[in-house]
Amino acid sequence: MAIAKKTQTQMENSSWIRRMFEEGIALRQQYGADKVFDLSLGNPLLEPPQAFQDELKRIAADTTPGTHRYMPNGGFPETRSAVAEALAEETGLSFTGDDVIMTCGAGAGLNVVFKALLDPGDEVIVIAPYFAEYFFYIDNQGGVPKVAHSDSLFQPDLASLEAAVTERTRAVLINSPNNPSGAIYTNETLAGIGESLRRAETRYGRDIFLVSDEPYRKLMFTDSAYPFVYRHHPRTVVATSHSKDLGLAGERIGYIAVNPDYRGREEFIDGVTFANRTLGFVNAPALMQRIVAKLQHETVDVAVYRRKRDRLYGALTDMGYECVKPQGAFYMFPKSPTDDDREFVRLLQSKLVLTVPGVGFGMPGHFRISFCVEDRVIEGALPSFRSALAEVTA
Amino acid sequence: MAIAKKTQTQMENSSWIRRMFEEGIALRQQYGADKVFDLSLGNPLLEPPQAFQDELKRIAADTTPGTHRYMPNGGFPETRSAVAEALAEETGLSFTGDDVIMTCGAGAGLNVVFKALLDPGDEVIVIAPYFAEYFFYIDNQGGVPKVAHSDSLFQPDLASLEAAVTERTRAVLINSPNNPSGAIYTNETLAGIGESLRRAETRYGRDIFLVSDEPYRKLMFTDSAYPFVYRHHPRTVVATSHSKDLGLAGERIGYIAVNPDYRGREEFIDGVTFANRTLGFVNAPALMQRIVAKLQHETVDVAVYRRKRDRLYGALTDMGYECVKPQGAFYMFPKSPTDDDREFVRLLQSKLVLTVPGVGFGMPGHFRISFCVEDRVIEGALPSFRSALAEVTA
Repeated sequence: MAIAKKTQTQMENSSWIRRMFEEGIALRQQYGADKVFDLSLGNPLLEPPQAFQDELKRIAADTTPGTHRYMPNGGFPETRSAVAEALAEETGLSFTGDDVIMTCGAGAGLNVVFKALLDPGDEVIVIAPYFAEYFFYIDNQGGVPKVAHSDSLFQPDLASLEAAVTERTRAVLINSPNNPSGAIYTNETLAGIGESLRRAETRYGRDIFLVSDEPYRKLMFTDSAYPFVYRHHPRTVVATSHSKDLGLAGERIGYIAVNPDYRGREEFIDGVTFANRTLGFVNAPALMQRIVAKLQHETVDVAVYRRKRDRLYGALTDMGYECVKPQGAFYMFPKSPTDDDREFVRLLQSKLVLTVPGVGFGMPGHFRISFCVEDRVIEGALPSFRSALAEVTA
Repeated sequence: MAIAKKTQTQMENSSWIRRMFEEGIALRQQYGADKVFDLSLGNPLLEPPQAFQDELKRIAADTTPGTHRYMPNGGFPETRSAVAEALAEETGLSFTGDDVIMTCGAGAGLNVVFKALLDPGDEVIVIAPYFAEYFFYIDNQGGVPKVAHSDSLFQPDLASLEAAVTERTRAVLINSPNNPSGAIYTNETLAGIGESLRRAETRYGRDIFLVSDEPYRKLMFTDSAYPFVYRHHPRTVVATSHSKDLGLAGERIGYIAVNPDYRGREEFIDGVTFANRTLGFVNAPALMQRIVAKLQHETVDVAVYRRKRDRLYGALTDMGYECVKPQGAFYMFPKSPTDDDREFVRLLQSKLVLTVPGVGFGMPGHFRISFCVEDRVIEGALPSFRSALAEVTA
């Protein structure tokens, strides 16, 4: 009995992404790495922008004492202010450094937010298709996940959301641009969610939070402005990271931003800061905090991801796959040409192409393709996509 | 109702250290920063060694692609191997990289270990005097803390430990060099703990883990070898960080090491790696992993902390304070000259010297002094220590 029953159960339910990762290792060993086309992982391909390298060099040359020591658990005041300033510019809202808590990435941020919010048995509504790790984050912090669904364009279905709300609902968790669909939730959708939450708040006499996971916010392939959540509900909190927009996934740097229009946020921010400390994060890594303070207006070259999207989307729809065109992130979520998405993913796998079945995202009948990979991986996978489709439609 | 009741309760029980920190801010504002002598915090004073600066510069100049991306959740294989090699050298045990999981510091490591080990209601025995945050870590992961006590030299009292063991005991958590006492647990003490655990394992038919929190392991003021825990119990896991030995507290870099003599450790390591991912740590910061891989034989200049220990210990005992001489870390834990340690700490505070009452470490009748401060802070505090003692013994 080396590990707890609870952890064992979680591990048995562990994500499909992980399973595909392990099967990928086996396939590569068997057939050679260059023969396997792995489109199953969301490991950002692009390198950090040049400004990151410049700033890292500048900091490496600066030996001011004290910069690697503890700082307040919420982060360096200058980093929090820099993030707040950029958010204020983008949203037109009066963010200050006090509304921002630096975290060890978005997964950290979500655990911290749920720790601050959830009493045992409190419910969090997650909208399918979803990133499966959310279930662990909610369960870790004593919450109970409930699922609402999306329409055929992957916009949250408001009737389904409404039906999932109960007297124990404490938060709704959304993710836009969405993993796995690449959909961007519209202002209309967000307004509908906000109205629904305020009705439920009145009905049940408790605060309900809209928690928005936004690591892909700056990876958009449209010219429209990003539909921010803040104006649609006062009790809004965003968890995000610089894993994707600055290509820093391994460095664990992100932040929590609390809606400046939420009165009473001081208590909430105290709770979040406390949770950040006592869950063992303590603070976001100091050196990365200093760097990202200078990079709030930088991003990786999003055009590269857009070109990959265009190539893959064009090729797959030409072949006859049905797919909603992703508007952001670096995933595509086509319909499975067979009823059983696991079966189709297995067929692709037999042709050395790794994807993830929709059932792993709470939306069977689809499968996820990650296109944050080298072009040769996309090109190498296309013949298998073609022959797999031909086989099942023959 | 901005935050959960559970979090509110935890916050109300939040540590004395934090309280002193806040009172310190108020005092500094009232009297001026140079008039207040803050000996309440454990924020490592010493800068990272020169080798850190050199390695940081080397890495900043190296633009090999992919170094800031995700890596396996346990860390870079080369970092894990470097840590294992150093541990093997020091302990004579056959550590390999597989026995090491890189973490975002020791607080992260402890949360991860408890998450992997604890089912709801499982008990963890903590030995007073203790670092109070342990209670949050255990509670976060569904465990119930139980307290055992130490003798007058701050060695764990084996009879007290034995009495605290029940059928629900899952782990014993120790910390040596100890915060707050600076005691180093002897090999005899550790052997006694190990025997006690194995008797309990047989009695209750379950595995019981010895969890050792070792962030101060390399801050020792004696020439004796560090008494490692591994040989004293097979189910031993160490959580530690480079916050103190390399002066990197803000960078959140540390590791978990699992006893290579523990058969069946593969399953445990899988559980720990899973917990590291799903609690939102994901992996230890990439850049720091690359740096510390090269610094396993480096430490800050421990002689500086020893000189501060000698000066403070000499001055206080000359005045008449009763104190066990600390053998490591950067804390001293003298007897309070009054029965009520909170009252004495308040008296010192009225003289603008900040310390922490022993009640905050589960051992009333003492108070903690941190000597990881500039010499001028120690010197400036001495007159108040003298006059406070005079007042209460008058």
